Amino acid sequence: MYRTRTCGDLRLADEGLVVTLAGWVQRSRKMGGMTFVDIRDRYGITQLVFNQEIDAPLCEQANKLGREYVIQVTGTVRERSNKNPHLPTGDVELIVSKLNVLNKAEVPPFTIEDDTDGGDDLRMKFRYLDLRRNAVRKNLELRHRMAFEVRSYLDKEGFLEVETPVLIKSTPEGARDFVVPSRMNPGQFYALPQSPQTFKQLLMVSGFDRYFQIVKCFRDEDLRADRQPEFTQIDCEMSFVEQEDVITTFEGMAKHLFKTIRGIEMKKPFLRMTWQDAMKYYGSDKPDLRFDMKFVELMDVLKGYGFSVFDNAVYIGGICAKGAATYTRKQLDQLTEFVKRPQIGAKGLVYARIEADGNVKSSVDKFYSQEVLQKMKDAFAAEPGDLILILSGDDAMKTRKQLCELRLEVAEQLGLRDKDKFACLWIVDFPLFEWSEEDQRFYAMHHPFTSPKPEDIPLLDTDPGAVRANAYDMVINGVEVGGGSIRIHDSQLQDKMFKLLGFTEEKAQEQFGFLMNAFKYGAPPHGGLAYGLDRWVSLFAGLDSIRDCIAFPKNNSGRDVMIDAPAALDESQLDELNLKIDIKE
Amino acid sequence: MYRTRTCGDLRLADEGLVVTLAGWVQRSRKMGGMTFVDIRDRYGITQLVFNQEIDAPLCEQANKLGREYVIQVTGTVRERSNKNPHLPTGDVELIVSKLNVLNKAEVPPFTIEDDTDGGDDLRMKFRYLDLRRNAVRKNLELRHRMAFEVRSYLDKEGFLEVETPVLIKSTPEGARDFVVPSRMNPGQFYALPQSPQTFKQLLMVSGFDRYFQIVKCFRDEDLRADRQPEFTQIDCEMSFVEQEDVITTFEGMAKHLFKTIRGIEMKKPFLRMTWQDAMKYYGSDKPDLRFDMKFVELMDVLKGYGFSVFDNAVYIGGICAKGAATYTRKQLDQLTEFVKRPQIGAKGLVYARIEADGNVKSSVDKFYSQEVLQKMKDAFAAEPGDLILILSGDDAMKTRKQLCELRLEVAEQLGLRDKDKFACLWIVDFPLFEWSEEDQRFYAMHHPFTSPKPEDIPLLDTDPGAVRANAYDMVINGVEVGGGSIRIHDSQLQDKMFKLLGFTEEKAQEQFGFLMNAFKYGAPPHGGLAYGLDRWVSLFAGLDSIRDCIAFPKNNSGRDVMIDAPAALDESQLDELNLKIDIKE
Repeated sequence: MYRTRTCGDLRLADEGLVVTLAGWVQRSRKMGGMTFVDIRDRYGITQLVFNQEIDAPLCEQANKLGREYVIQVTGTVRERSNKNPHLPTGDVELIVSKLNVLNKAEVPPFTIEDDTDGGDDLRMKFRYLDLRRNAVRKNLELRHRMAFEVRSYLDKEGFLEVETPVLIKSTPEGARDFVVPSRMNPGQFYALPQSPQTFKQLLMVSGFDRYFQIVKCFRDEDLRADRQPEFTQIDCEMSFVEQEDVITTFEGMAKHLFKTIRGIEMKKPFLRMTWQDAMKYYGSDKPDLRFDMKFVELMDVLKGYGFSVFDNAVYIGGICAKGAATYTRKQLDQLTEFVKRPQIGAKGLVYARIEADGNVKSSVDKFYSQEVLQKMKDAFAAEPGDLILILSGDDAMKTRKQLCELRLEVAEQLGLRDKDKFACLWIVDFPLFEWSEEDQRFYAMHHPFTSPKPEDIPLLDTDPGAVRANAYDMVINGVEVGGGSIRIHDSQLQDKMFKLLGFTEEKAQEQFGFLMNAFKYGAPPHGGLAYGLDRWVSLFAGLDSIRDCIAFPKNNSGRDVMIDAPAALDESQLDELNLKIDIKE
Repeated sequence: MYRTRTCGDLRLADEGLVVTLAGWVQRSRKMGGMTFVDIRDRYGITQLVFNQEIDAPLCEQANKLGREYVIQVTGTVRERSNKNPHLPTGDVELIVSKLNVLNKAEVPPFTIEDDTDGGDDLRMKFRYLDLRRNAVRKNLELRHRMAFEVRSYLDKEGFLEVETPVLIKSTPEGARDFVVPSRMNPGQFYALPQSPQTFKQLLMVSGFDRYFQIVKCFRDEDLRADRQPEFTQIDCEMSFVEQEDVITTFEGMAKHLFKTIRGIEMKKPFLRMTWQDAMKYYGSDKPDLRFDMKFVELMDVLKGYGFSVFDNAVYIGGICAKGAATYTRKQLDQLTEFVKRPQIGAKGLVYARIEADGNVKSSVDKFYSQEVLQKMKDAFAAEPGDLILILSGDDAMKTRKQLCELRLEVAEQLGLRDKDKFACLWIVDFPLFEWSEEDQRFYAMHHPFTSPKPEDIPLLDTDPGAVRANAYDMVINGVEVGGGSIRIHDSQLQDKMFKLLGFTEEKAQEQFGFLMNAFKYGAPPHGGLAYGLDRWVSLFAGLDSIRDCIAFPKNNSGRDVMIDAPAALDESQLDELNLKIDIKE
């Protein structure tokens, strides 16, 4: 071992001890005849002292150390005269008697500090240096701790972690698979799993009763800021359970994580909200409930007064921003611009301030009497100083989604999206199907194995669009951290589902045949859930993107710019795989 | 929840309780007016009782249950008159008052029993039914428990589990990579990692200090019985360590596993054996030390007496099988056939029995006097009743390997390879290079980053073949369960290694460039180890193959016969990937 202690653990009680440390040179400075060097490792930073008067050659040597040199030092622990209360080791320093340069370092392309001068691209190219920064390493320490606590909790609850295969079979439905040519089976391909869905259901058929796996999944999609081609799921499945059992178990896991990782004791059950209510009151199936601003519908209040925008609308709704009547005209114009951006697509924004005397002053005063405006005020239970923001449109769902964006933006501006506050809820009663206007057919909202609510089964024949699913999502701070469903275990019901989803018997057999066959040999009632580990970690770390809680992430083109992957193959490799590149111009 | 208790937990103390169980019908039998049904879940088996006299319709219903039906029953726990001491629940039975068939089952293609009537192919095709068998499920429960204990141990030792990417870059050196075409980067491919070697070394450069990961790795090799295209490694790396530190840490892990999983306390340090000694005395770098039979060299003893086979040999060596003088002529002929098989390739076998009076009776008596044979006996310290078996050849290493096979075979026959006995050791001081006669060049025995022993560095210039590596393997019962090395952290030494391995500067840069570049920014001394999880589990489970400790293994052609993967892709998928199939006839 090159050290007897780490750079993070020396304290006043160690005074007088002779210790050996090893680590990186964080910084060094000369003051008079003294040279001070901060040595850093994963565990912390310790100040080293070299004294020109006591050992000139050693001090000379220290003066030559560059940033990020790897060194080994032996010395005596001494109390610091000039203590640093910001460092756990700040009460002591090491009077060095021996210095050994283990490795030199070129000057890194950016500073290894919490606030680095490195841009995103540079940090990604030199990710191994970026990972030296406290801020990034802490996220990965958190990730380790969270995965560990997930396993502890699930193990105690009787779950078995079972590894399912990575080299599986492509299923054309849904998002694109990554595929892997097989050398031993010419012309054939494996696929990488988008989720271990089929395998976990097979494990239930096998009687494993409670399965989980923290597992890499893969999706060859065009990437958004918060997506990676490979991502990590906490994948779970249970037998002989109903929706309530799954929710209880995984709410328990969430509470365990909050308690062990963040020290937050959540005693009350999480709020449950139907999908209908979530869409109606927040315009989203993942509402951020750290703050209020519930939608208020205003069709009854504002229609029919000659303001054609509202008179022709199918939906009029608004939010009340507490205390935001101070918004200037400029701020309101910016909000109007915000909702008119093509990504959001609203036509305009109506606002109304509640003045100190209780009067309402709106942007559409010429159409509405104070009496009507007071009614509107009452609908929001608005108070002096509040700001009411209203959108309308000819498609209720679209307008609600626009209002959702506005709500989040205003909350952001008002500082209501506090990263240290957590609002957890379950969204339940999802529709079983989504209707596609484009394809004129139903799609499974979750997946084709999701069970309808037993009481809604008769509606499958009469009104499929109204059937609710035994499906549930957990939402924290407006982020969907996981979701799942009770699965269909009855083969007749499954057949009916396939028919409603437009599968011919042959196609259903081709795609899901082996799972359907497995079900013939005694499938238990079962259901499960998958949590996104990346999202959980980024939420607990207070990050806006999942990228910085992944050690070696890929960029938006799916490239690892550090190792420069993907890359071309040798012709001989392609030959062996019986493949030819065929790029269309 | 469909149950209030599991099928494994009812005891005499529960007598009189009304409980609900759910599970599979293991078997049922009618006796007089009674029907007995064994219900099974992951946790055990409970006997259900239906009484014709008490509830005839219910009993009728029970009589219709088939094997593997999924049922839910409610009833009262009662003491059994006819207790079954082999079952934990054997003191009680459930007098059923309510029966609910949750799912019917077709008759499975083989019996769900420890001793099944299903052949290998059938079991693999219906793996989800095979996994219902206790014997198979127990292996996966063991695997879960072992992975959990590995994580507990390493977490306590300060290791962080960091996920490294699965979509990486192909490195042409060594075994074949599986590759993944990139749709977003036409003509380019990712590769699946054969190990996270580069990434774990980068994490050391990043100052992670102690890394581990239980991780899937991939190798597109022609498969042997004990290989899978995807396998699981316990991958570890540490900074600021020397060989002794790595060995201590991971010997600690082995002992932790033996203690927590098998209840075996191993107090003594594991034996260490140099690679040279392992080859000399056991003809293998993974000797099985559950039994003795160390090789004895006989060149001095048996050469020069006119037996031309020995007189012309470069190596003569043998083993002494205690108490095996009772071997019949037929058994000895079979052993001779065994060593002459082409896979082993010996020319013949010489044997000698030590008789009750101490005389030696050998198959080459006409060449040797009793005096010479007594010298040979002394060389083995053989005693009356022992059997000496001797091989010779013109290549010492080859002959030793043949003798190794013979040693293992004889030990097998003598029942010395007890699966409940564990002999652990470290093989150390591996040669750094292997010379390839075919290519007339050196190859790295471990990998090109393995550090030579500091005292052997001068030999790099004069006698590379004699340089020993800071590399180590852990061997248990003749199985290499893991291995690793101290890595080179000095870039000049690394350059020298590349040169000795025949890399041009360009090629080294192309293949390992980004790792070499990373090392320029301050690489700490580091080293690590990877354990094979599959092998550890199969060892602890007493399995001959790793297959039955993997939930969904592939066969020897790399196929998953259950899901029928790999498979052909749609033309449109290939198009999107800019690929064409090009099978050469």
